[in-house]
Amino acid sequence: MEIQVMKNILGENDRVAAENQALFREKKVYVLNLMGSPGSGKTSILEQTMEHLKGELSMAVIEGDLFTSKDAERIERHGVPVIQINTAGGCHLDAPMVQKVVNRLELDKLDLLIVENVGNLVCPAEFVVGEDEKAVILSITEGDDKPMKYPLIFKESSVAVLNKIDLLPYTNFNLAGAKEDISTLHPGIDIIEASCSTKQGVDMWCKWLKARVANKK
Amino acid sequence: MEIQVMKNILGENDRVAAENQALFREKKVYVLNLMGSPGSGKTSILEQTMEHLKGELSMAVIEGDLFTSKDAERIERHGVPVIQINTAGGCHLDAPMVQKVVNRLELDKLDLLIVENVGNLVCPAEFVVGEDEKAVILSITEGDDKPMKYPLIFKESSVAVLNKIDLLPYTNFNLAGAKEDISTLHPGIDIIEASCSTKQGVDMWCKWLKARVANKK
Repeated sequence: MEIQVMKNILGENDRVAAENQALFREKKVYVLNLMGSPGSGKTSILEQTMEHLKGELSMAVIEGDLFTSKDAERIERHGVPVIQINTAGGCHLDAPMVQKVVNRLELDKLDLLIVENVGNLVCPAEFVVGEDEKAVILSITEGDDKPMKYPLIFKESSVAVLNKIDLLPYTNFNLAGAKEDISTLHPGIDIIEASCSTKQGVDMWCKWLKARVANKK
Repeated sequence: MEIQVMKNILGENDRVAAENQALFREKKVYVLNLMGSPGSGKTSILEQTMEHLKGELSMAVIEGDLFTSKDAERIERHGVPVIQINTAGGCHLDAPMVQKVVNRLELDKLDLLIVENVGNLVCPAEFVVGEDEKAVILSITEGDDKPMKYPLIFKESSVAVLNKIDLLPYTNFNLAGAKEDISTLHPGIDIIEASCSTKQGVDMWCKWLKARVANKK
């Protein structure tokens, strides 16, 4: 019975996600669903992205958080339109939440919309919001066992960013092993090593995004 | 309608949790529900705990994981009884899952049962499993904004462990600020700074546990 209910919720979510997707297709906006654990560095990567791509792409951000608008405030400082969704304790964003706010964005003017999901390595991977693709950020300090322990999010994502790579010397993280595990779970996935402190990998990440946006035009 | 379903699920969970709690009370086993993000160091803290308390307390562990038994294998090496619960993708443990396995433990001989929840800073805080108390582990590398962004888990926990404190010099984590936020969310909560690399704080954490166990006898 619980399973049945879950199926109904997912069915309704998929229906609304398809509507969102049709809107984004019509407006030629590439939409990325950005996921990762609390503190993996999602907002920091976004801040780097905005600095790197300003003048080149027209961006907007939807911020998913349980209660606060701390992340949205960080984004706003970079002069990029940002909409805050508070899930009031909910552990993931879903398609109806995105649908409810998306008309507050000037979609005609946008190239790239990044939806920063709630910090959670489990639930967000189960709910599409209408995105073109998903990205997962895993920080080095979380440990190299995480891909195999949380496989769905890596299977669902088109790119995995291994963040806080500058902290590698202070951890026992097996970089080669983790990359192998990620590629085993999802053959062909792109893997980018990055650090928002040293800026390593930010250029490669932004190139990845630009290629995706160009492809949508 | 979705809310109604959620209430029913929680109601059933609370009923089974009360049964678990009655069993643990009868057997005088202190039960801790250990929560935290993926990679916050829950299993590492448990390994330190087992090394520190062996010979003093009779312990067992229930390991919650989505799919793998990686953590249970780490626990088993320390000679402590461990039961693996795989949630098959589920984002938290619940009381029926614990009830289903708990009779495989020799409860009469136990002082302390630690239930390591699925790595997730959101959902586990919403489901009691029959524990006496909850503990949350937050690692320094997750960032000092996490207590205010994930308030429920700090409100629900009797103790917060600030783990990986040895990495503090390599981060911009505001330790005083984070402790203040945690104490604002939950006045009176115990806060322990710890590191499984340097062993800092392990002694204090184990003292905390021993006092709790003694209180249950």
